[in-house]
Amino acid sequence: MYDFVPAYVAPAGSPIRELHKYVGLPDMISFAAGYPDGALFDVEGVQRAFEQAYADPRRCLQYTGTEGLPVLRDALRSLMVGRAAQVEAENLLVTTGSQQGFDLLLRVLMQPGDICLVEQPAYPATLQALRMHQARIVGLHGDEGGIDTARLRAWLAEHHAAQPIKALYTVPTFSNPTGRTLSVQRRRELLELAVQYRFLVVEDDPYSELRFEGPALPSLLTLAADIPGASDWVVHLSSLSKVIAGGLRVGWMIAHPDIIKRCVIAKQTSDLCCSSLTQAVAAAYLSSGDMDRHFPKVIASYRDKCVALIAALQASFGTSIRVEHPQGGMFLWARCEEVDAARLLAHAIDNRVLFVPGGAFYAESGPSPEFRLSFASPSRQELATGAQRLHAAYQQSLA
Amino acid sequence: MYDFVPAYVAPAGSPIRELHKYVGLPDMISFAAGYPDGALFDVEGVQRAFEQAYADPRRCLQYTGTEGLPVLRDALRSLMVGRAAQVEAENLLVTTGSQQGFDLLLRVLMQPGDICLVEQPAYPATLQALRMHQARIVGLHGDEGGIDTARLRAWLAEHHAAQPIKALYTVPTFSNPTGRTLSVQRRRELLELAVQYRFLVVEDDPYSELRFEGPALPSLLTLAADIPGASDWVVHLSSLSKVIAGGLRVGWMIAHPDIIKRCVIAKQTSDLCCSSLTQAVAAAYLSSGDMDRHFPKVIASYRDKCVALIAALQASFGTSIRVEHPQGGMFLWARCEEVDAARLLAHAIDNRVLFVPGGAFYAESGPSPEFRLSFASPSRQELATGAQRLHAAYQQSLA
Repeated sequence: MYDFVPAYVAPAGSPIRELHKYVGLPDMISFAAGYPDGALFDVEGVQRAFEQAYADPRRCLQYTGTEGLPVLRDALRSLMVGRAAQVEAENLLVTTGSQQGFDLLLRVLMQPGDICLVEQPAYPATLQALRMHQARIVGLHGDEGGIDTARLRAWLAEHHAAQPIKALYTVPTFSNPTGRTLSVQRRRELLELAVQYRFLVVEDDPYSELRFEGPALPSLLTLAADIPGASDWVVHLSSLSKVIAGGLRVGWMIAHPDIIKRCVIAKQTSDLCCSSLTQAVAAAYLSSGDMDRHFPKVIASYRDKCVALIAALQASFGTSIRVEHPQGGMFLWARCEEVDAARLLAHAIDNRVLFVPGGAFYAESGPSPEFRLSFASPSRQELATGAQRLHAAYQQSLA
Repeated sequence: MYDFVPAYVAPAGSPIRELHKYVGLPDMISFAAGYPDGALFDVEGVQRAFEQAYADPRRCLQYTGTEGLPVLRDALRSLMVGRAAQVEAENLLVTTGSQQGFDLLLRVLMQPGDICLVEQPAYPATLQALRMHQARIVGLHGDEGGIDTARLRAWLAEHHAAQPIKALYTVPTFSNPTGRTLSVQRRRELLELAVQYRFLVVEDDPYSELRFEGPALPSLLTLAADIPGASDWVVHLSSLSKVIAGGLRVGWMIAHPDIIKRCVIAKQTSDLCCSSLTQAVAAAYLSSGDMDRHFPKVIASYRDKCVALIAALQASFGTSIRVEHPQGGMFLWARCEEVDAARLLAHAIDNRVLFVPGGAFYAESGPSPEFRLSFASPSRQELATGAQRLHAAYQQSLA
């Protein structure tokens, strides 16, 4: 009856979303959701932040500028100083999570058929956003160290003249779904390639604060300051969703002012501004120092859970599972060589355990032995029981 | 340096936004902003709503479904019952203001070159959203009773076969900028034309609760239930921005499930979900009964201010200004025949008073004697003084 645009005639939706219907089943253990652990929210700290923010109720309740509430913009710039990046006001836009930042960027930059390189496996919503904007997705298959920059260099030398690429999307620190982190050396090489071939590097950075092992690495944004011309080609996206709460929907974009200016107009057109109330609460929380007091507990819990899940999987599976060991984030990337993860999932649902099969994270998916396990939300007991159930499902899928 | 999509190469931005730089000048009186009066916010009521919502902190802080927080979805459906519309869950999507609803709709339905009829003068962000989606905008010039459906019928009979239209956008109740309201008879005719010619009627309805005079009229959504086939062709957008607070950024869309389903996927891709916190607060406020206690004060204030501004203008201008008398909303639509409103604005700024010249509300703007005055935010004293200053500017612009 309706004449939908082609991308929406038979829209795919999120493969992870499809699993939602199973999450509520009795006794289900879910390693599927990418949600932070609700038990670790700083409930009292956010309440205090509300009270402080609401001391100026009109600021919380009135519309604010599209660029973001000034007090939050200042707080985010301070936060970025703590992450070794000096950010001017004209380089910053507050967004509804980092996800809106990517969507706005695609709106102002991506025309149908434009090429975007994507580190794969990738966050499914990234792939979906690119599809909706009719971009051509070229997957970069890396290794446990993330994007293989030597292969990327070779690819660019061969293909770029005929097919200039517009952007490259990566989660260089604790990638979703793999938990992989790109080395400093590769980060530098990536930035040099961006300058040489004049493409945008979109650094999606929601997880870097969730480091529970090893020394912190500089972001692409930070490194770009030392590579001539590189700052112009980095778009840095981040979010408070994993460090305070996803329910605030506060993210931000850092980019060249010409890009920010366009994204402001795209945002003004699409939703005018983010909630002043949640922005004011976020600003008050960031300024309170509560995060520094509370966040180490979150990190410690994620560290414990990650270690516990790896141990439980190895206890059940022995050598029949391979799991990468992340230094932070929320995800384990696993593979069981002999089975297709989609088939494993069917048995897993019967055994009351959920995960996301690897195919969800590729632009073109076929059978894959890979899958993603989130260790953030389940309890310690659920991690242990879930690993056993997963192994039972694995044995059934071999039969 | 960057290869922006054409609409963003030299993006226009909002003409109202351009006035922002003058708003902060000392002693400036602004009739320009479309903001509700911050002095009328139900500060205590929203605080109680926060406290009630935050009794379940995890619900406020965790991500929620793209369709919206269930408790808010229920509250909005109850609200719509009070507006004489029975809305099923599958017909409703929570959005970031009504503005996001329109943007999502354009994303799933509008292809470059598709025709959208727009009641003009129109809300500038609507025109901008259509431009960004490369729609062809055909302006409908109505009269003081809104869209002239007889002329629309004639236009469709002549043009529709060659140029099928996809949608018609209207604010049928207390239009921004004119304050005009479409009669019930014309509403019915509009819906019959939509069924006959198979186009979507987008009913943007943020202001209808702000009625301070005359009996309430049924929305297009309500009337459509009695016209065979019409419900399929109505997309109803609304918002709590004018009835609770714009800072919450809570709006909603009501449409056929096929449209909602696509818009959910577009929203999932663009920003995942609205803030759970503001949704929970809005739901608690709607359920508290505080709105029924508080809102009559808002209406009474707007009524008084509207009457006061009209009286002050007539006292200063006599017959050299013509002002339409709205039955609700936040805006007066005025004209001073002998002057171009853009020229009048230059003198007005010198006299420390602001308004929005009429050209901002047309897809193709030229000199216009029309302008919009918002009476919502200024104080009674400012309304009186502002009218005198406006008259001084008018005399200077005649000289």
